[in-house]
Amino acid sequence: MKPRKVYFNGQYVSEQEARVSIFDSALMFGDMVFDMTRTYGQQPFRLRHHLERIYAGLRYYEIDCGMTISEMEDATLQTLALNLDALEGAEAQIMHNISRGPLGVYKSVFDGGLRPTITINCWPYWWHLAPYGPMYRNGVHAVIPAQHSVPAHLIDPKVKNRSRVYYQMANIQAQKTDPKAWALLTDDQGLVTEGTGFNFFIVRNGRVMTPPGRNILLGVSRGAVMELLENMGAPAVEQDFGLYEAVNADEAFFTATSFAIMPVTKLNGRPVGDGKPGPLTKKLIEAWSSMVGVDIVAQADEYAERVAQMEQPAALAAR
Amino acid sequence: MKPRKVYFNGQYVSEQEARVSIFDSALMFGDMVFDMTRTYGQQPFRLRHHLERIYAGLRYYEIDCGMTISEMEDATLQTLALNLDALEGAEAQIMHNISRGPLGVYKSVFDGGLRPTITINCWPYWWHLAPYGPMYRNGVHAVIPAQHSVPAHLIDPKVKNRSRVYYQMANIQAQKTDPKAWALLTDDQGLVTEGTGFNFFIVRNGRVMTPPGRNILLGVSRGAVMELLENMGAPAVEQDFGLYEAVNADEAFFTATSFAIMPVTKLNGRPVGDGKPGPLTKKLIEAWSSMVGVDIVAQADEYAERVAQMEQPAALAAR
Amino acid sequence: MKPRKVYFNGQYVSEQEARVSIFDSALMFGDMVFDMTRTYGQQPFRLRHHLERIYAGLRYYEIDCGMTISEMEDATLQTLALNLDALEGAEAQIMHNISRGPLGVYKSVFDGGLRPTITINCWPYWWHLAPYGPMYRNGVHAVIPAQHSVPAHLIDPKVKNRSRVYYQMANIQAQKTDPKAWALLTDDQGLVTEGTGFNFFIVRNGRVMTPPGRNILLGVSRGAVMELLENMGAPAVEQDFGLYEAVNADEAFFTATSFAIMPVTKLNGRPVGDGKPGPLTKKLIEAWSSMVGVDIVAQADEYAERVAQMEQPAALAAR
Amino acid sequence: MKPRKVYFNGQYVSEQEARVSIFDSALMFGDMVFDMTRTYGQQPFRLRHHLERIYAGLRYYEIDCGMTISEMEDATLQTLALNLDALEGAEAQIMHNISRGPLGVYKSVFDGGLRPTITINCWPYWWHLAPYGPMYRNGVHAVIPAQHSVPAHLIDPKVKNRSRVYYQMANIQAQKTDPKAWALLTDDQGLVTEGTGFNFFIVRNGRVMTPPGRNILLGVSRGAVMELLENMGAPAVEQDFGLYEAVNADEAFFTATSFAIMPVTKLNGRPVGDGKPGPLTKKLIEAWSSMVGVDIVAQADEYAERVAQMEQPAALAAR
Amino acid sequence: MKPRKVYFNGQYVSEQEARVSIFDSALMFGDMVFDMTRTYGQQPFRLRHHLERIYAGLRYYEIDCGMTISEMEDATLQTLALNLDALEGAEAQIMHNISRGPLGVYKSVFDGGLRPTITINCWPYWWHLAPYGPMYRNGVHAVIPAQHSVPAHLIDPKVKNRSRVYYQMANIQAQKTDPKAWALLTDDQGLVTEGTGFNFFIVRNGRVMTPPGRNILLGVSRGAVMELLENMGAPAVEQDFGLYEAVNADEAFFTATSFAIMPVTKLNGRPVGDGKPGPLTKKLIEAWSSMVGVDIVAQADEYAERVAQMEQPAALAAR
Amino acid sequence: MKPRKVYFNGQYVSEQEARVSIFDSALMFGDMVFDMTRTYGQQPFRLRHHLERIYAGLRYYEIDCGMTISEMEDATLQTLALNLDALEGAEAQIMHNISRGPLGVYKSVFDGGLRPTITINCWPYWWHLAPYGPMYRNGVHAVIPAQHSVPAHLIDPKVKNRSRVYYQMANIQAQKTDPKAWALLTDDQGLVTEGTGFNFFIVRNGRVMTPPGRNILLGVSRGAVMELLENMGAPAVEQDFGLYEAVNADEAFFTATSFAIMPVTKLNGRPVGDGKPGPLTKKLIEAWSSMVGVDIVAQADEYAERVAQMEQPAALAAR
Repeated sequence: MKPRKVYFNGQYVSEQEARVSIFDSALMFGDMVFDMTRTYGQQPFRLRHHLERIYAGLRYYEIDCGMTISEMEDATLQTLALNLDALEGAEAQIMHNISRGPLGVYKSVFDGGLRPTITINCWPYWWHLAPYGPMYRNGVHAVIPAQHSVPAHLIDPKVKNRSRVYYQMANIQAQKTDPKAWALLTDDQGLVTEGTGFNFFIVRNGRVMTPPGRNILLGVSRGAVMELLENMGAPAVEQDFGLYEAVNADEAFFTATSFAIMPVTKLNGRPVGDGKPGPLTKKLIEAWSSMVGVDIVAQADEYAERVAQMEQPAALAAR
Repeated sequence: MKPRKVYFNGQYVSEQEARVSIFDSALMFGDMVFDMTRTYGQQPFRLRHHLERIYAGLRYYEIDCGMTISEMEDATLQTLALNLDALEGAEAQIMHNISRGPLGVYKSVFDGGLRPTITINCWPYWWHLAPYGPMYRNGVHAVIPAQHSVPAHLIDPKVKNRSRVYYQMANIQAQKTDPKAWALLTDDQGLVTEGTGFNFFIVRNGRVMTPPGRNILLGVSRGAVMELLENMGAPAVEQDFGLYEAVNADEAFFTATSFAIMPVTKLNGRPVGDGKPGPLTKKLIEAWSSMVGVDIVAQADEYAERVAQMEQPAALAAR
Repeated sequence: MKPRKVYFNGQYVSEQEARVSIFDSALMFGDMVFDMTRTYGQQPFRLRHHLERIYAGLRYYEIDCGMTISEMEDATLQTLALNLDALEGAEAQIMHNISRGPLGVYKSVFDGGLRPTITINCWPYWWHLAPYGPMYRNGVHAVIPAQHSVPAHLIDPKVKNRSRVYYQMANIQAQKTDPKAWALLTDDQGLVTEGTGFNFFIVRNGRVMTPPGRNILLGVSRGAVMELLENMGAPAVEQDFGLYEAVNADEAFFTATSFAIMPVTKLNGRPVGDGKPGPLTKKLIEAWSSMVGVDIVAQADEYAERVAQMEQPAALAAR
Repeated sequence: MKPRKVYFNGQYVSEQEARVSIFDSALMFGDMVFDMTRTYGQQPFRLRHHLERIYAGLRYYEIDCGMTISEMEDATLQTLALNLDALEGAEAQIMHNISRGPLGVYKSVFDGGLRPTITINCWPYWWHLAPYGPMYRNGVHAVIPAQHSVPAHLIDPKVKNRSRVYYQMANIQAQKTDPKAWALLTDDQGLVTEGTGFNFFIVRNGRVMTPPGRNILLGVSRGAVMELLENMGAPAVEQDFGLYEAVNADEAFFTATSFAIMPVTKLNGRPVGDGKPGPLTKKLIEAWSSMVGVDIVAQADEYAERVAQMEQPAALAAR
Repeated sequence: MKPRKVYFNGQYVSEQEARVSIFDSALMFGDMVFDMTRTYGQQPFRLRHHLERIYAGLRYYEIDCGMTISEMEDATLQTLALNLDALEGAEAQIMHNISRGPLGVYKSVFDGGLRPTITINCWPYWWHLAPYGPMYRNGVHAVIPAQHSVPAHLIDPKVKNRSRVYYQMANIQAQKTDPKAWALLTDDQGLVTEGTGFNFFIVRNGRVMTPPGRNILLGVSRGAVMELLENMGAPAVEQDFGLYEAVNADEAFFTATSFAIMPVTKLNGRPVGDGKPGPLTKKLIEAWSSMVGVDIVAQADEYAERVAQMEQPAALAAR
Repeated sequence: MKPRKVYFNGQYVSEQEARVSIFDSALMFGDMVFDMTRTYGQQPFRLRHHLERIYAGLRYYEIDCGMTISEMEDATLQTLALNLDALEGAEAQIMHNISRGPLGVYKSVFDGGLRPTITINCWPYWWHLAPYGPMYRNGVHAVIPAQHSVPAHLIDPKVKNRSRVYYQMANIQAQKTDPKAWALLTDDQGLVTEGTGFNFFIVRNGRVMTPPGRNILLGVSRGAVMELLENMGAPAVEQDFGLYEAVNADEAFFTATSFAIMPVTKLNGRPVGDGKPGPLTKKLIEAWSSMVGVDIVAQADEYAERVAQMEQPAALAAR
């Protein structure tokens, strides 16, 4: 692979140099606001939405990152521009990571003083997108684990933050039922919240429902899908629901930045509807492809071929 | 400062090289088990207790770190030995960090394959201990913020983990009342749990109470203090209590690895007892000093002098 | 009375033969999905709605009853046809009971193998409907007991199931205030949920409110009443409310299959509005009668006369 | 098999005749108090304890069964005596079922008037005990499902009642991880409560812990095990604990009437301790065998042989 | 000051005579329903709304005050008329206090028998309104304390009652951050409820949100503001929100009878929007002034001048 | 009756003069700490305990009353001395009421400045004690209402405060079952807390249990009874329990200052034990009488005779 450049506190450094100190609040406390944006045709998708979410998170955690949102936007575009060559034609995952910075007591090891740590990095999307082709066609298996969501008043999931070890716990538990399962979280009242990094929708009797924006990340893809549904005359309703509604859904799907829309065709080991991606879900995938000007299913298949040619195909792990 | 060596997945590397990748589960999810041990007379204090706590946490998060506890103990002692010179006479903070490792999808950037990331590092205790002298003599100010503890069934604090952004939120809120305040957390029922990295005890009518071991870290210092109290004929009772008991305490103190025992003489802006470190608290500090063979108050004062001679005295920040 | 036939796992047997084994999961665990449909003019009312609710419940509890919904519909209509004569002119209560079947360990006593137990039975409605006449005219007394509803994530009331001993507890408690009281349940936050087998509506300042469909049975009558209200230009709003709204209602009523709509004129011993069935409630009873082609008040009075002529009039007990 | 007699409201009838009406409150509402007693050497084990638990449950649900506890004891012993021959040498499971009786509205079909329904039946223990031999030697696999316990204030598990469909839901979910898994329930705070019909103990560092008697059935076997532990100098502590303590246990076991003590050697797919029945657990099984005068492991093996000779060996299903 | 008259159980007495007995349920239990109405141009503002709220509260607490709502209205207007002179030109605060009356056991000290205690008193608004001028221009500082709201099922805030010591606790805590802070309460799930005697609104991206009417007082000013917003084409949405939405608001304001609308320009020590009263907030203040025919900002300034001329300016304390 | 004197902010005034202003925080917010002490033989019982509880409450609510506890003790004794004559031989109820004082905005009506309002008054115990004789002999009826206790983190019942309208709500609800019922409160988990002004104990199988000191008032009588039980060799255990334990108790009783110990012989309409005061309860009443040197049952009977001779016997109302 060609070397990539990372924006790191105002400079562009190599990925190796951009590592986060173990004395940084990011690692000490999971105290970091981040975001993931992807490109379509190598253009960032709704970058401003992602940046606004970052800044809302920074206000919540009272981190003053020292850059305006426009400066951040410029830095992002420049980082992308600097890495275009290294992407070798792939779409990019653009990751922003902003922490409160090193803890004061470890100040002596930091040259530049104690200030928030800001990194922006680009990553070619070969490995992330490669496995999605068959998933788009067959759907994935959602499993509700015993691990619950953390509610907003304790650690607010509306801030995309790094204190999410419970996502890993949920993944581990769900994958005991099926090693390929995707975890679907519920709260302490059994209300569905979100997946471990993606939002959830169900369709029942033509009605589209998704959990309200309280104990979930307000996904940019979730928002875009709601716009598409509005345009398709099937507006989604934000409404609390639980296992009963989920097992009785006709269709279900996840949304997230990397895959956009992913059919859920199995829930807790039982088929959703007839066990195949539903008609509305398929229509949405098409509408999304139109909107972004990229056939996302074909792109996944193309990336799968490319990855197969590389030395070691990577397993999906970073949903 | 003299350069220090960090144990990093079986090798000893420089602190700069030991940084954690942004593609590691540690950063992505706050998915890391860690621990802090300190030395007295440059000998680790209850190292085995700390290691047992780490391994209990690894079992909880189903991380197989690939080392037995004895191997970890050996590696720890060797890391300390390698850094003795660099400590320049200071006590050491020994930090263990064990994450699940890099996420699979980013596999291509990691040479050594996907395996847990294990680091052990030593840090001279000059800056941590330096500010404690006057605090031992006058006590600190505890403030209960609006931010609550996360309960064990969501993210278990008995595992010393990195998904603790709520600690920072609690610190920020408490310090709005007093920039020097230490946050004291409560749960959703208003029961006192712990500080943001330390345990809490109160004394009332000669009775010592500390929150039960459910939604708190089971501090090694907490355990040692309970043994000292047992020996002093004033055994601590593990019991739920809230604001009422705290504001009506005669004495209060925190315990943690770095400072051992810290008098709390102010709570929510009002004096605890007569506003001075209580007699039992002072007796405990003496007993601790005896136990470890180091006068901890004198040591703090000595370190303060040393730090004053260095270029830039560091503010306390890593409680 | 003329003997009645019960559909029992594909056969038609006598009521005596249709009893459920003590080794059946229905009795062992209250593990049975059921439903109650009634006839108007001896035609089932919204049978398909009831069957869809049964099948949603079976999916929730992962019971595969071995029959399609259409087969179940056919069996239901045939059961009714076989019992028409035995009804002696009365409307029928049609009860479906579907359990997971006998527990495996007791297999040796069951000839037909271990499979779900399905029964459909008809019951002449003389005794159920007989007491309703004066209640329609004067209203009933709702009392909120200390016993709370079980929330959906523990035992979902949207599945009409048999693990409802708390309904009996609620009835017992409510009837300590008034032996004729009907229990009105609330959840742990004091929000009104449902009665012990019926739904609840209030009217205040012309606005009709009913609890949202989360911790309640989604009554077929509730749905039908909401349609009638829509048509009458007074659409019901699904909204959380508690004691405050209930005691300040102008009108209140229950809905259920047997009685359709029942005015509530007393709540916790105090009059609702002026203590008489309200104008909207009365209009609804008329609209319902029109819809089903049966004057439900007159029918109740007629049944009361008939029951009075029988040997032992039965007390209302099966709400 | 030889025909068995069932005590049914004062008479002894055949098992077929003893079925419970679908119009009984037992089936309508899961409104039935029951108990399971077993024999050792064909003598009931702690029958009085079981009966006292029944009567406590009847008081809770305000069911007056019309018999004193001594009359119930006599009827139980007589039922056993009448069935001794039919047991063909096996130990007996003695089941008491007491419901509030038929609902009043269905009165016309009941000859004997509306009164509580009381049945006592005996069942040869061949099939229940047959599978336990290898389990005693290897232990069983406990899995914590997403389904939680119902807390005491909603449906009190201290009353052995029939509104337990959530036990089946928990079993179904746990068995998605492993078809042979036994479900281990937790409450809404993640505290371990009980299995779906059995109690749970863990041993850690020589300390035996079991959940306190709040949201669990107070098992008679649980009580007997606590006595044995007391005598062995390792008294059990009733204490709240959750997943953390469970995964870090050295040993774990279930207790229940049928199997007495069952080693748990796997929890959520991971070994408990070294994955074999622990030393204290094995000692307890021996102590139990001494106490009851029956080698329970040998008996299970013997029953397994017997069952193998019967036509169709039954799968374990009625834990 | 000129002496004022208080309506006291049917008579008009001096303020000194109108004191409440320590043996009254009002003092013994905080068992009193009350309300505050203000005048504009010495005419009561929405008096009927306030009285309806009182009567809803009386129904909730089952206090029969012995007067119809019209009689109460007449008594109110007469009390105002009797005090017009004593107001010396000021607007009036009209306070209704209705308690269950003296406790029976202390009956011997009450001449008039045991009956509810009803008082209506008028108070010149000089001191309340005097400090508001600069606040309208600069906004106030809202701080979220650790003390939470009491939910409706425990003490319903929809009844304006006197069991509100937690309001004082919240004020005390908030004022530790800033002596001028106004407390903003949240519930146990971290959802914003209300201030300690006022309602809260936020504006974000042109969308106005206010907490739903569950665990809050349904303020008459809140209702009037919602009407104004409706008319201005920016209808408020009743929706749950927490800290995240509050810190990311563009504008925020409180509403209450005394000040009508008060800009919130600081929240937890950080600016709301740009730290100045927002455009919609300012527009609302103007619209309110138009509606009531009084420039509320000018009036506050005028009252401040007047108070400055009095002997001892009173500090704001009765929000 | 002879006129009584009330201590009022340092002076002794008549009861009529001692009334609390409607502008006092006590009435505005139920913001008052109070206590009830009684005499035996006209000597205060455990006055110091009561005063310590008051001062703990003042610390909690951050009210500085301006008097030391010894000054308060002196004032109390002097108030009693001044009223001895007016008691006419009766025991005294001594009530302390301490509020934060008048709200600042109403300052102009208070001569003495804004300071806490402190009153101490004595009341002859004729009417309180008069009804207790038959209750001691027959027991009282406890009923658990739907209204729950407010938990300590919202309004701490360990502070005897005046924000207790929920006590009245509980009384009203309980008395719908039986006009003579005494309300017994539970918390949101169904755990018994306390009565509406008294503590609760049960006895089962010789074991005495009382709710732990978390969400209850720590009654002085409760403490004294626990001492008596300790001395009698039947120490009470502080332990959570709910309805199940309560309905299965052999004995039950309340404790409070006025009546000391009151047998509970009926619970929710069903007898406790055999429906008569239990042996341990009776023994405790005797032990209490010995301890205080007054036969409390005989005293109640004597007071009943005295009250019968007065003009208007007062109903019990101030429990």
